[in-house]
Amino acid sequence: MASQNTLQAALGYQFSDANLLEQALTHRSHSGPHNERLEFLGDSVLNFVVASLLFVRFPKIDEGDLSRLRANLVKQAALADIASRLNLSQYLRLGEGELKSGGFRRPSILADALEALFGAVYLDGGFDAAQQVIQRQYETILDHVDAKTLGKDPKTLLQELLQGRKLDLPVYAVVATHGAAHNQLFEVECQIPALDIKVSAGGASRRAAEQSAAELAITAINAIPQAKGQRKARARKSTQLSLPVAVSQEKK
Amino acid sequence: MASQNTLQAALGYQFSDANLLEQALTHRSHSGPHNERLEFLGDSVLNFVVASLLFVRFPKIDEGDLSRLRANLVKQAALADIASRLNLSQYLRLGEGELKSGGFRRPSILADALEALFGAVYLDGGFDAAQQVIQRQYETILDHVDAKTLGKDPKTLLQELLQGRKLDLPVYAVVATHGAAHNQLFEVECQIPALDIKVSAGGASRRAAEQSAAELAITAINAIPQAKGQRKARARKSTQLSLPVAVSQEKK
Repeated sequence: MASQNTLQAALGYQFSDANLLEQALTHRSHSGPHNERLEFLGDSVLNFVVASLLFVRFPKIDEGDLSRLRANLVKQAALADIASRLNLSQYLRLGEGELKSGGFRRPSILADALEALFGAVYLDGGFDAAQQVIQRQYETILDHVDAKTLGKDPKTLLQELLQGRKLDLPVYAVVATHGAAHNQLFEVECQIPALDIKVSAGGASRRAAEQSAAELAITAINAIPQAKGQRKARARKSTQLSLPVAVSQEKK
Repeated sequence: MASQNTLQAALGYQFSDANLLEQALTHRSHSGPHNERLEFLGDSVLNFVVASLLFVRFPKIDEGDLSRLRANLVKQAALADIASRLNLSQYLRLGEGELKSGGFRRPSILADALEALFGAVYLDGGFDAAQQVIQRQYETILDHVDAKTLGKDPKTLLQELLQGRKLDLPVYAVVATHGAAHNQLFEVECQIPALDIKVSAGGASRRAAEQSAAELAITAINAIPQAKGQRKARARKSTQLSLPVAVSQEKK
C-alpha cells in the first residue's frame, strides 16, 4: 500500500486524526469501521461545495442549468475520474472477495471512497478545510466546463444546435423493428432536410435509438466543412465588414 | 407586509445586505431578481447541514437510515411547516396572479422561499451563519425524531412491528376491484392470523390499497390493550422470574 502521506499531499490536507483517513479508505467488505457513514456526509458536503462554486462561477445561468451542471460534476463517473487521478485505488482497504474481483478498480467503490474522504476532511478540519480540498480537485474541471452543453442528451443538443441556426427541428421516425417482443431492436431515422442530413441508428428502445441517431446527426453536422446555416451567416458578416456599419462596430 | 426585522429575529440572523433578504423572498412571478438561484444554493446548504446534524446526533445508525431521515426532514411538507412557523407568507413578494390564487399559502412556494433564505444567509454571512440559522430551526424537530420510524411507509412499519414480536408477516390479498380500467379502485385485505386481525382498505392502485390496509392493521394492533405476542412474552418472563435461570440473568 502506498504511503498515505502522498495521498494527503495530493489532497492538500494533512489529517489530525489518522483514524478518520483510514476509515474513509475502508470498504464495508473489510473488517473494522467502514466508510459508508462518512460517504453520506461527504456526498452532502461535496454537493454543497460544488453548488456554491457553480453559483459564483456562473452568475447568469438559471437554477435548472446549475442543477444539470452539478449533477454531472458529482456523478459516479466524474468522481471515479478524480479518484483515479489521486491513485485512490492504491490506498483502499477491501475485503478479500472484493480484492480478488478487482474491486479497487470499480468506479462505485472509488467514487464512494472519494466522497468518504471529503466527509472525513470535514469532520477532521471543519467546513473550510473540506471546501478547500474539494475546490482543489474541481478547479481544473470547472475551467473546462461548457455550461451550455455539459450533461445534455444528444436530442436536446441537436435541437439547440438547429434552433441556434434558425433551422427546423429534426424529424425522427422508426423505420424498422427487429427481434421478438421481449428483446426488440428499434431502428430510428433522424432527418434534417435543410442540411441534407439523414442518419439512422439502432437501440433497445425507441428513445435510445433516437438519442443515438441524434448523436450521429450532430457528428454529421460538425463534419460539414461549413454548415449551410453558418455559411450564410459568414457571408453576411463579410459583406458587412466592407460597409460603414462595420467601422462603427469597431469603434465600440 | 410585516417588518422584515421580525423575520430576522425569528431566524436569529441580521442581514448585512438587505437586497439578499429581499431577493430570497421574491417569487419568480414578481418583477425584479427572484429567488430561484438562491433556492438552488439554499437547498444544498440545507441538505448538508441537516446531514451533519443527523451524523452527530445518531452515531449508530447506518447511512441508509441517515438518508431516509434527511429526506423526511428536508421534504417540501417539512419545509413548509417551518416556513409557517416563521410566518413566511407575510413577507413573500408574489406576482398579481399568484397573489390572487393564494400562492402565499402554497407549500411549494413557502418551501422554496425558506431554502432561498438559507442560501441568502450563506451568501451574506458565510457557512457558520447558515449552519446556525438552519440548526436553530431544526433543534426542536430533531429532539422529537423517531429514528426507527420516521419516513417509513406503513407496510415496512407493520413488517418491522411483527418481526419485532417474532410473528409471521402479514398476508395481503386483492379482494375486489371496482370501476373501469382507467379509473379502478382496488380493495385489499391485510391479515395477521396470529393476532386475529383482518382489515381492508381501498386505493387507486394495488400498492396504495396495501399501504392503507397496513396502516389500519397498525392501528388495530395498537388498539389491542396487550397484543397477544406481547402477552405471551410477558407471561414467559414472569414464569422465568421464579426460576433459577432468571436469577442468573439478574447477576449479569
